[in-house]
Amino acid sequence: MTDFGYKDPYVGVMKGVIKSINSDVEIVDLTHGITRHSVLEAAVNLLVSAKYFPQGTIFVVVVDPGVGSERRALLVETNNYILIGPDNGCLSLLMERDGVKRVFDVSDSQYRLSKISSTFHGRDVFAPIAAWVSRGVPLENIGVEIDVNSIVKVSIEKPVYDLNGKTIKGRVLYIDLYGNVMTNIEADHINLIEAKLGSKLNVITGDNERQYVCIYEKSFSRVPYGELACYINSWGFLEVAVNMGDASQFLRVKPGDKISFAMLLGNTQLVEHPLCE
Amino acid sequence: MTDFGYKDPYVGVMKGVIKSINSDVEIVDLTHGITRHSVLEAAVNLLVSAKYFPQGTIFVVVVDPGVGSERRALLVETNNYILIGPDNGCLSLLMERDGVKRVFDVSDSQYRLSKISSTFHGRDVFAPIAAWVSRGVPLENIGVEIDVNSIVKVSIEKPVYDLNGKTIKGRVLYIDLYGNVMTNIEADHINLIEAKLGSKLNVITGDNERQYVCIYEKSFSRVPYGELACYINSWGFLEVAVNMGDASQFLRVKPGDKISFAMLLGNTQLVEHPLCE
Amino acid sequence: MTDFGYKDPYVGVMKGVIKSINSDVEIVDLTHGITRHSVLEAAVNLLVSAKYFPQGTIFVVVVDPGVGSERRALLVETNNYILIGPDNGCLSLLMERDGVKRVFDVSDSQYRLSKISSTFHGRDVFAPIAAWVSRGVPLENIGVEIDVNSIVKVSIEKPVYDLNGKTIKGRVLYIDLYGNVMTNIEADHINLIEAKLGSKLNVITGDNERQYVCIYEKSFSRVPYGELACYINSWGFLEVAVNMGDASQFLRVKPGDKISFAMLLGNTQLVEHPLCE
Repeated sequence: MTDFGYKDPYVGVMKGVIKSINSDVEIVDLTHGITRHSVLEAAVNLLVSAKYFPQGTIFVVVVDPGVGSERRALLVETNNYILIGPDNGCLSLLMERDGVKRVFDVSDSQYRLSKISSTFHGRDVFAPIAAWVSRGVPLENIGVEIDVNSIVKVSIEKPVYDLNGKTIKGRVLYIDLYGNVMTNIEADHINLIEAKLGSKLNVITGDNERQYVCIYEKSFSRVPYGELACYINSWGFLEVAVNMGDASQFLRVKPGDKISFAMLLGNTQLVEHPLCE
Repeated sequence: MTDFGYKDPYVGVMKGVIKSINSDVEIVDLTHGITRHSVLEAAVNLLVSAKYFPQGTIFVVVVDPGVGSERRALLVETNNYILIGPDNGCLSLLMERDGVKRVFDVSDSQYRLSKISSTFHGRDVFAPIAAWVSRGVPLENIGVEIDVNSIVKVSIEKPVYDLNGKTIKGRVLYIDLYGNVMTNIEADHINLIEAKLGSKLNVITGDNERQYVCIYEKSFSRVPYGELACYINSWGFLEVAVNMGDASQFLRVKPGDKISFAMLLGNTQLVEHPLCE
Repeated sequence: MTDFGYKDPYVGVMKGVIKSINSDVEIVDLTHGITRHSVLEAAVNLLVSAKYFPQGTIFVVVVDPGVGSERRALLVETNNYILIGPDNGCLSLLMERDGVKRVFDVSDSQYRLSKISSTFHGRDVFAPIAAWVSRGVPLENIGVEIDVNSIVKVSIEKPVYDLNGKTIKGRVLYIDLYGNVMTNIEADHINLIEAKLGSKLNVITGDNERQYVCIYEKSFSRVPYGELACYINSWGFLEVAVNMGDASQFLRVKPGDKISFAMLLGNTQLVEHPLCE
């Protein structure tokens, strides 16, 4: 996973480096479309994607705005996977979920390429280390073990409840290519507020200027074309979509924006106060 | 083949699911750039591409605007290939060309993932079923055989001839990244009208406001830079291109638009009436 | 490597053709994002990328604006690799660097597909020839050996020094997805002028209207956000970047533009005359 996009030969060259070291290893592209320099986006996408890959998969994450500065290069052994990438938080959400066995600083590893550039550690550091790990080199030979608490972390903010106002206030966590707006509100949060309020919920959402009825459904395809729906998305997070449209444009939100969901028992009457801040 | 694009980890996660079930199978990306929700575009691209792949290839097509609704999930055995995708027509053009042996409804297959989301059947249904097929599970164990006539079909409209006006009226079928305009007029249609008119043809085309001389050649590279050419493209369809330019912008057409070709024997004098409707 | 982009099934179909001939060969995408029809960009990217791939790698380069014209199709054996592509210069920079053993004209090879289109030689000529080479068919059986001096060449212009004005005048060679501006000035050129001037250098650059202080550093990440840096990039060329920004927009340059670097000993006072032409 990188933010290198699809114009340049950067990803292809990383694969060349890997294949030069281990011609038998198979390489799968998770995505190279991470928003440039967006460490949180990389961390979130790694978090939700990893469990669909076989145990022992080596994940190489190169979203690395600090390349060439003093940030460390990491090699992480979680309970399920090997993670390789810069020490800027991009690995941290999955580390927290999976549980960490060992963390190594590989900034000065002898398993890097012999000549290290200042701007392309994906090629010179992360790819060759991944290839050597895939060949079975013991991790402790590759880097220096460090304290897991010393690494840089990013976090997903927890949503806030207001049971009187029947609202959940969250954040936009990710917007996909379709413009679907994924929030930091998880299925369990919805289940909890439903249990507390004693009823299944319809949902409306809005921004400072406008409010929108947003039907809480199983899928965006359950509402008419052009209408808002919200649903628990395939990763388990509350997401807003427009059927056949672009919810991020419709709601005028971007990653990091606050977004509130007001819940109405049994029907979808509009509430009168602004829902987003 | 999907319309998932290249920003999100959706395609990568599908590969993770497949590799978790069958680590030996090889995955080739046909394209993930299908226009969002364009079932016809997916069907056309599958139709023209499939024959370049080995017999027995398993094609997974996820262009699925109805995901989470009641549309069925299909597993199709044609005379050459296995096709897997939603029952919305995206598989139907290739099914018609190849000939179908058996069709199965796999909407409730036990070979799906244990937990099914409402919005990502590429991951939860189509990828795992493809992987199990690749491992040799008999198709009849995976789904319920259904009548081939019960599936949703899309069709490519036939072009219309006017031998007096010496015109062929067709439709824009596809516009590629270069802006080359592929029509529904096939090489055989051109051969037929040439035979009926008794001569090789030059061609002009136009729209309601403007008419353009469009040389009928072997390739766009046979006309000067910036000029229109039409030719039988590499899939066997009549296509209009601007050498080193973008014909779709030049002609101001989009998929589904009507497009007419007026034919002149031996030279390229402009005809006076509008050619497109 | 192609300029086919990621919308159409062209690259996928080439892989289908290859796999139909040699199911055991592994295919790695170098990039399909080469600027449409940019032969120089393809040649430069192949030049810098190839050495990261194993000896014997077969590179297929399809940036082919002249497809369907009389340009030849080439099969090249360098001292390290096999190169396959049109005779338009896209292979020539790597040929020059690697040294050439033999060159073959494969325009009429019997190892092409049985039916050859006029517009998609990637599928009909280059992919099948690559696949047959990977299966061990002797190169002399595939094409007709030709004189290496007969092929079309592109070249990277040499930068020009002005030791009195302490400037190096070069060209923009490539702009990547990040907007980083790669020039034709190589590390050795910098070393040479540093040796002649007897000091390490700071650098400023500019255009006809504006001049910019551009710190010469190890990496863009060494300057504050939004500021210009120049550095030897990971391929060994002098590159200008804006930390977390887009240098090509900031400098308003495009590939082929002239760009000058004025060097100041020990500090970064602005010089008074225009730096770009």
